[in-house]
Amino acid sequence: MENEASAVQVNPAVRERLLAEGLRLFTSKGYAGTTVREIVEAAGVTKPVLYYYFNSKEGLYLSLMESSYAVFAERMNDLVAKSGTARERMEHLCLGIYDGFVEFIDVAQLIYALYFGPPQGAPHFEHDKAFDWILAAVKSVVVDGMASGEFRSGDPSDMTWAIVGCLNVSMEEQLCRSNPRIDRNGAKRILDLVIDGISQGVAHE
Amino acid sequence: MENEASAVQVNPAVRERLLAEGLRLFTSKGYAGTTVREIVEAAGVTKPVLYYYFNSKEGLYLSLMESSYAVFAERMNDLVAKSGTARERMEHLCLGIYDGFVEFIDVAQLIYALYFGPPQGAPHFEHDKAFDWILAAVKSVVVDGMASGEFRSGDPSDMTWAIVGCLNVSMEEQLCRSNPRIDRNGAKRILDLVIDGISQGVAHE
Repeated sequence: MENEASAVQVNPAVRERLLAEGLRLFTSKGYAGTTVREIVEAAGVTKPVLYYYFNSKEGLYLSLMESSYAVFAERMNDLVAKSGTARERMEHLCLGIYDGFVEFIDVAQLIYALYFGPPQGAPHFEHDKAFDWILAAVKSVVVDGMASGEFRSGDPSDMTWAIVGCLNVSMEEQLCRSNPRIDRNGAKRILDLVIDGISQGVAHE
Repeated sequence: MENEASAVQVNPAVRERLLAEGLRLFTSKGYAGTTVREIVEAAGVTKPVLYYYFNSKEGLYLSLMESSYAVFAERMNDLVAKSGTARERMEHLCLGIYDGFVEFIDVAQLIYALYFGPPQGAPHFEHDKAFDWILAAVKSVVVDGMASGEFRSGDPSDMTWAIVGCLNVSMEEQLCRSNPRIDRNGAKRILDLVIDGISQGVAHE
């Protein structure tokens, strides 16, 4: 075994293929229901190759989560860096999160399954932090918008929850339904409705 | 076996105990991870008693879902029957749904686990309908509020999603966290923020 493993050539494409097949199998069959054998067969390699890159199924799962959260963190950094009015920044932030969710919907599906589903023996991963990043980023724009007078005064936490609630329901429609009743334009309209409500001087006729 | 089963005396308390222990085990160990033996042992009865009332684990699960959805449907009928302003009706409806969710949070937990989790072999149950009932009930109040002029004109579906999004995020906080950051008063404040936004003539200062 050691000989086989040490004979593996480092090949980023193989590593990526193992991650992709792991993700696909975890989401379709469940984490507990997926074996190392199935992952390596789907990726067209042998078990020692998986062990070489990830040590175990747990290791592959953790790599998948770490790389997904790293991409998410980088996106969030870009999204919050936008300048403009509070409304422009909020739309840019929330629609950017929405776009990332749709782009990585299979990762989202796996995270929801492990978060809400029965215990499956997956190693602990702090999934709450992604939601906490979203809450913190939205709140910072709310606070800035209140400070500049663009948003009316009020409890910034309440306004944050209202915005995150609208964002969440739009994203969960994509996750839960083959025919989502909200698309990207719908997500923007729903968000604008709440931003209108917390903005000063919006004429309601 | 037939003799044992036919010897069972109909006893609603025993039936309820089996349902309660089934629910407790399904939520803690997962549906697939729970056996008939565990349920009957927890309920202090023998297997034929479970078979008598439910035929199988699947039957017990379906009874649990059917009775839960029946209670939910009845609550919804009561909640939408309230008279008053559109705001009063919307608050009554949404906080009533919130209260029901908190009261039956273990049922909600099981539904989320089966909805988002990996396939566990549970018989099909149309879980989307609960969410559809909520959407329809909220939308009917939005439409009435727009017709009476209490809510400003706009797309009733967008307004419905904004309200349901805020309700959902409040309920999911209860489901996901041992220390929810939104309580019932918070849920009401967040909802009021959105209702303010869609109402006519609300002074924003």
